[in-house]
Amino acid sequence: MSRLGRMIGRSALFAALSLLAAAAPTLAQDLASWNDGRARSAIVDFVTAVTTEDTADYVEPADRIAVFDNDGTLWSEQPMYVQLAFALDRVKALAPRHPEWRDAEPFKSAIAGDLKGVAASGEKGLLRIVAATHAGITSDEFTRIATDWIATAKHPKTGKPYTSMIYQPMLELIGYLKANGFQVFIVSGGGIEFMRPWTAQTYGIPPQNVVGSSIKSKYEVKDGEPVIMRLPEIDFIDDGPGKPVGIYKFIGRRPIAAFGNSDGDFQMLEWTTSGAGRRFGLIVHHDDAEREVAYDRDSPFGKLAKGLDEGPKRGWTIVSIKNDWKRVFPE
Amino acid sequence: MSRLGRMIGRSALFAALSLLAAAAPTLAQDLASWNDGRARSAIVDFVTAVTTEDTADYVEPADRIAVFDNDGTLWSEQPMYVQLAFALDRVKALAPRHPEWRDAEPFKSAIAGDLKGVAASGEKGLLRIVAATHAGITSDEFTRIATDWIATAKHPKTGKPYTSMIYQPMLELIGYLKANGFQVFIVSGGGIEFMRPWTAQTYGIPPQNVVGSSIKSKYEVKDGEPVIMRLPEIDFIDDGPGKPVGIYKFIGRRPIAAFGNSDGDFQMLEWTTSGAGRRFGLIVHHDDAEREVAYDRDSPFGKLAKGLDEGPKRGWTIVSIKNDWKRVFPE
Repeated sequence: MSRLGRMIGRSALFAALSLLAAAAPTLAQDLASWNDGRARSAIVDFVTAVTTEDTADYVEPADRIAVFDNDGTLWSEQPMYVQLAFALDRVKALAPRHPEWRDAEPFKSAIAGDLKGVAASGEKGLLRIVAATHAGITSDEFTRIATDWIATAKHPKTGKPYTSMIYQPMLELIGYLKANGFQVFIVSGGGIEFMRPWTAQTYGIPPQNVVGSSIKSKYEVKDGEPVIMRLPEIDFIDDGPGKPVGIYKFIGRRPIAAFGNSDGDFQMLEWTTSGAGRRFGLIVHHDDAEREVAYDRDSPFGKLAKGLDEGPKRGWTIVSIKNDWKRVFPE
Repeated sequence: MSRLGRMIGRSALFAALSLLAAAAPTLAQDLASWNDGRARSAIVDFVTAVTTEDTADYVEPADRIAVFDNDGTLWSEQPMYVQLAFALDRVKALAPRHPEWRDAEPFKSAIAGDLKGVAASGEKGLLRIVAATHAGITSDEFTRIATDWIATAKHPKTGKPYTSMIYQPMLELIGYLKANGFQVFIVSGGGIEFMRPWTAQTYGIPPQNVVGSSIKSKYEVKDGEPVIMRLPEIDFIDDGPGKPVGIYKFIGRRPIAAFGNSDGDFQMLEWTTSGAGRRFGLIVHHDDAEREVAYDRDSPFGKLAKGLDEGPKRGWTIVSIKNDWKRVFPE
């Protein structure tokens, strides 16, 4: 063999070895921010079981569907849902063009940053805010507005971008599942078009793998230009019993693993874990007042009561942020 | 280098070479059932342009979204939409349990196989058939029924399974696009849950990449078992101006290539091809009475008039089955 032949042989060997490395199942060490313990073991046991061929628990890659809630599961939902902060900021930004808002609820409270005042206006008030801030513009305009906002807005307590207020252990979990042939989807009560502009960059989850709540829209040709207009009318609420419906509608198959943190995820976990074969349900319990925020039964955002009471009986894994996570946010 | 070393080197070289081969852009020769001509050239030129790095037309793989209509574009829609044949068969199968249907339209006509009689009952009649055949059962039951039917039903003219009445050149086109980094979706006026059970096997397009019309559904726990019940109420019509809306809803991005065959695809092609950067629109024109069916302006299924008149002006590629396809169906 010539020297050149050996060189080619050697570089080819390296190429083949890296190919092998890429194809090998991802080791559980990748869950680096998870403490050794029951939660981490449960995840690894499940993934090992459904990816080991010629066993009763084996699941074909095409059926390895995993669904994640977003608010409180992948990123912070305290002191309020990020999308609510977006809506309030939009009201403030639009207020100069709407002098009539100064004395009309819920806009008056929204402009004053008075959450309780906004809440007092009820569902009708919230819908008025959604209509004013999310509708009446084209799909492209909304994408631009959401993209610009998420790039500049800061979390009120930490002063960090919202896309930094994401949970490092959950990012590792998404990576671990993907490396083991899972297809990962977000199934959130939040607005689908609010999330899609930034989920690929933030979580590695592309727009078409995002399921969420939506308003109606309409196709029209406006001054010769085809656009999709966003209408001030609720289309679908992807929360609670809406989550299994959203999964059926968008993904078309029952997942084998579901990850949530609030009672809005209860039915998604219930539907996922009641299917035939090996299944996995996990609830993130926010019990770490020091490194994040401790909340559950009495929280206005991300209330968790039924999941805490019933989850363990159903075999769901309850993650204690305090005990199970080495760190909460990316460094 | 030892003999073993050389052996390893050589097999590694082969591995690396096959890796390179897999990574290389798929050659246009794969479009084996397409005659050399304008349509084939237009496809190859477009794909080459958007996949050639460091050029103005280059599109990142994540944005290489291609959408295909189903009825008449990927499989036969003559002498009637396959899903209509399914619905009529379901009415016949359920008729013994519904003696009241014997004298009530549209069921009486459906049982008699009288399409004109069914059509005479209008949209209201069709909705009654949809409600009777597609709703009132769980998602799992419907999937089973659709799966069983498609596995056994035969095309009325050819006697072949419907999943054989698919267009070979379009299969090759899907493969060519996928090999060039495209993500391929079906965007059909047909029922989303009717298609999903068989699209992966038939076209290599998984359930979550199928967009279609839908009825509403509801999550409930029935005798302790969580189910999704299908309701007798239209949720979304993915046809005409509904197609861009469906794409925005399900995929969240404007495609760069769209493939259709009827005026129900007009707005999908219009929206796709009016985006910034290089775009592609294609219409399959059924003009081959000998090998398939010739139809366009006057057809009750898959009417094509506006697309024929306006498509060429808009730079869309019109495919003549007669002249552009070497063969129509798989051998």
